[in-house]
Amino acid sequence: MAYNIYSEYPPPLTADQEKYLVQTVKNWSIEHALAVRPSSAIVSEEANPNHVLATNAPVTLFPSPFPKSCFDQARSLQQVYNELYAAVASDEQWLEDVIKELIEVDDFLANLWKIHLSVKEEGYVQDLTLGLFRSDYMLHAPEDDEAAPPSLKQVEFNTISSSFGGLACLVAELHTSLATYPSPANSVAYPPHPLFGNSSSPDQPSAINSVGHPPTNAAVATLTAGLAAGHQAYGPSKSTPPLPTCVIFLVQDGERNVFDQLALSTFLYKEHKIPSFRLPTSQVLELTSIPSPDANPARPLIYTPPSSPSTQYEVTVVYFRAWYAPTEYAASTSWAARHHLERSAAIKCPSVLLQLSGSKKVQQVLTSRPPGPDHLKAFLPDHPTATLDNLRSTFAPQYSLSSPSSTTTSSSTSPEAEPEGIRLALSEALAANHVLKPQREGGGNNIYRTNIPPFLGSIPRSQWKQYILMELIRPPPAAKNTVLRSDGQVVRGNVVSELGIFGTCLWRNPLRSARPQILHNAEGGYLLRTKGKESDEGGVAAGFSSLDSLILYEES
Amino acid sequence: MAYNIYSEYPPPLTADQEKYLVQTVKNWSIEHALAVRPSSAIVSEEANPNHVLATNAPVTLFPSPFPKSCFDQARSLQQVYNELYAAVASDEQWLEDVIKELIEVDDFLANLWKIHLSVKEEGYVQDLTLGLFRSDYMLHAPEDDEAAPPSLKQVEFNTISSSFGGLACLVAELHTSLATYPSPANSVAYPPHPLFGNSSSPDQPSAINSVGHPPTNAAVATLTAGLAAGHQAYGPSKSTPPLPTCVIFLVQDGERNVFDQLALSTFLYKEHKIPSFRLPTSQVLELTSIPSPDANPARPLIYTPPSSPSTQYEVTVVYFRAWYAPTEYAASTSWAARHHLERSAAIKCPSVLLQLSGSKKVQQVLTSRPPGPDHLKAFLPDHPTATLDNLRSTFAPQYSLSSPSSTTTSSSTSPEAEPEGIRLALSEALAANHVLKPQREGGGNNIYRTNIPPFLGSIPRSQWKQYILMELIRPPPAAKNTVLRSDGQVVRGNVVSELGIFGTCLWRNPLRSARPQILHNAEGGYLLRTKGKESDEGGVAAGFSSLDSLILYEES
Repeated sequence: MAYNIYSEYPPPLTADQEKYLVQTVKNWSIEHALAVRPSSAIVSEEANPNHVLATNAPVTLFPSPFPKSCFDQARSLQQVYNELYAAVASDEQWLEDVIKELIEVDDFLANLWKIHLSVKEEGYVQDLTLGLFRSDYMLHAPEDDEAAPPSLKQVEFNTISSSFGGLACLVAELHTSLATYPSPANSVAYPPHPLFGNSSSPDQPSAINSVGHPPTNAAVATLTAGLAAGHQAYGPSKSTPPLPTCVIFLVQDGERNVFDQLALSTFLYKEHKIPSFRLPTSQVLELTSIPSPDANPARPLIYTPPSSPSTQYEVTVVYFRAWYAPTEYAASTSWAARHHLERSAAIKCPSVLLQLSGSKKVQQVLTSRPPGPDHLKAFLPDHPTATLDNLRSTFAPQYSLSSPSSTTTSSSTSPEAEPEGIRLALSEALAANHVLKPQREGGGNNIYRTNIPPFLGSIPRSQWKQYILMELIRPPPAAKNTVLRSDGQVVRGNVVSELGIFGTCLWRNPLRSARPQILHNAEGGYLLRTKGKESDEGGVAAGFSSLDSLILYEES
Repeated sequence: MAYNIYSEYPPPLTADQEKYLVQTVKNWSIEHALAVRPSSAIVSEEANPNHVLATNAPVTLFPSPFPKSCFDQARSLQQVYNELYAAVASDEQWLEDVIKELIEVDDFLANLWKIHLSVKEEGYVQDLTLGLFRSDYMLHAPEDDEAAPPSLKQVEFNTISSSFGGLACLVAELHTSLATYPSPANSVAYPPHPLFGNSSSPDQPSAINSVGHPPTNAAVATLTAGLAAGHQAYGPSKSTPPLPTCVIFLVQDGERNVFDQLALSTFLYKEHKIPSFRLPTSQVLELTSIPSPDANPARPLIYTPPSSPSTQYEVTVVYFRAWYAPTEYAASTSWAARHHLERSAAIKCPSVLLQLSGSKKVQQVLTSRPPGPDHLKAFLPDHPTATLDNLRSTFAPQYSLSSPSSTTTSSSTSPEAEPEGIRLALSEALAANHVLKPQREGGGNNIYRTNIPPFLGSIPRSQWKQYILMELIRPPPAAKNTVLRSDGQVVRGNVVSELGIFGTCLWRNPLRSARPQILHNAEGGYLLRTKGKESDEGGVAAGFSSLDSLILYEES
């Protein structure tokens, strides 16, 4: 049996060591704004009426080991993925074919699609689209071969509100500081360990190499450069007389993850001299306007800062850190406001079509391969087969739950029989190896394993098609870590980690063409989210999982 | 009557402007660690059992106007003041003469003095002393001439635990950001105002000039360079075999102002590559040791990190951010621990003698001038009279309350009559213009105005000598500002500001000489503390006053 990298990791702590480590992380987090606003579960509204308090983001005390080969693979694929989703979002007809059956049963997708149709009818005035992406993966360890190295499987590809780039950079800095202070040979926070490069273990093969601390995380620089590329490509003000320009961060009211977002806006101003303003979704219609077609057919989006209404700004890029989930559209004016932004000349990050491209259904359809349609080849004709095979290797098996009458784009190869997805989902034995995912973004709505058959039995069969069935990814079972939660509690145990790679893409979608013209395509920065193994679900902001970084190792 | 700089300052805010400004300050503060741990009055221990929460430091929403000439004067005097206090602390005999009468009635000063005598008897092994100073001033506006420009009067000279250098730098950055974002001509946070350089007022003389935002604050760089100078001057390890070296930040248990301190330790490591560790006073005897004279007569101070006991460090500098006030010595071992540090080879910042030099009594005695003793001339023989006069101009009139029999060092010129200080203090009419200050550091114990006569009447006359009487400084009466407290409440009104100038000094006190040999003498960085005018007392950390920065102006 192969050496198990997790067998002695993280190193055990004495009481004094844990006390020092926890106190250091608590202080470091606030000192460097690795912070969140506390939820009302941590501090009641009554105890924090003016919303001034902050606490550390939930973080692991140690970076998690990760195979360097898998990290390198994920990075090497990011620009290809960026291009793939730019192509998907640019092919309106293909996208319509994929999601039309969902539109019938999913009001959220239907409303987004209606906005697209309405703006298309009026005529789009902006042919540039910006994507700030994060492709999420898990390590997959084949059950039948413990010695085989783990492989990389994509969980999802985020096309809207890809978050935690700001805080993830800080976690990498935190773990690096802990591993190397006051010197790499003598960390005062971490006990010696082979992965920190300052100890060897009798069980450890000499062929395991590690640099001893996490790689530098370039997420903030990468995401900000994407916003800057959009801002520059927008060009000069379309208003007469010209207005100063700005980027808008479209945010939720009462956002708790505000410091993650501020890391980007601060860097955008500091490094690129581009001002930005935070606009809550509830104030879009109040604080932005578009001149009438007679006054200015270019439809610039004009922002009026409520604190300084005498100076108006023209918005070059609307960066969505909100409006990704159906629950965010509760206000009666939400859809009107979304439509208002979509028809403006501002570059949307993302456009409605790009948001739709991130649906799980698209992800599932893209896994289709010969003898079914080869969408990858069609969307990425200029890439060698080896690149497409490499990308395809990150797909976990996934299936449509559409009925035979609506499988035009399904990967099912036997349209007359019960589709394979339905067969797998209804069998308790087979479902036990799967997860059922709805189309919506944001997590928290997945159905796992043997819960799948009874769940499907509880909803009308006509609703099944809004789910896709994905084979469960089998992460390394021995992984362990310790987490400092936002309420200050320290918990430890077996964990599952999810790696996100950030990428950005700016493209022009020429009229009468389904092929995007790519102007900016970049990769950089990562997120590792680690959650307790007993929990199948969890967003970091909700406190169920934590921010992590990685310590890369090579076996040879 | 002259134009009053405060007549339209700060500019009034609309509700939208205040909302934006307050929200921006709340977020900016946490994003940049302009933060404190909340007191139990803000968040109960029960609601914050793991001490993870943080909140903004109390800050003014606007920088306070300050005459550039007074700021320049304070800066120009700092290195002279540094040298003066180095000389005082080096002249044991003079110091003993000044404080011997206090020792009889003040246990705290007596205990400090005893430590000095004990170490002197054993023999000092370290002849270097480091001071991280802050000289505090207020503007004094003569009552009888409203058109006269305000002058600078010293409130006190801090020789131990001079705090808020870290947070003060951040306040200057905050106010600069507010005044200049997204551009100096169009701040979105501040309304236009002549002092921001983006508006003129019909009432304003054209001769008032301002750069529109606070000057850069170099406090962190200056204080850290002082610590680095001490660390370098200590030289190589005195242990055999040599140990790695470090600086110790001696701190209070449960310190709430921790981020102010971390700004220094982080910068010390980042810029100077000098590691430091935080040591609570309660753990000094447990975690540090001094070899026996037989083993090592050099008495190096050895620190053992509890989280990593296998690697010991030799302490070059002990930087006191604790043990400045009598209340901090409650533990039975406190004085033994202080003695332990004093006798070690580590450079103390400050030594016991330097701490004693910061007593109010010393400040009062230094104001003596011919025909009394000219201590300034004696301590600073190499400076021209003009410099000494300039320094002396910052002294507020102050008086001893010693009885005639103990006035050897008093500035009283008629030793036979009732000393002038006692005469002023006992008259209700005359006391109304004075403040009575005890020797102890830390504020909060002053007796003001007409409270002085009854207070003196309530204590034995033998105790009076531990107080000095100072003429009240009369700050500009029209000054106003708005404060965001740590609990998120916004309060506005008339304010009083206190300017602190930071300076550092490292000197060698050669055997058999009362004259220090100065190795490092630097000035840089400032603190402005602003409190509501109704409050006579207030430390920023206690929430009664707030951190501020200054916007310099010139009238010509």
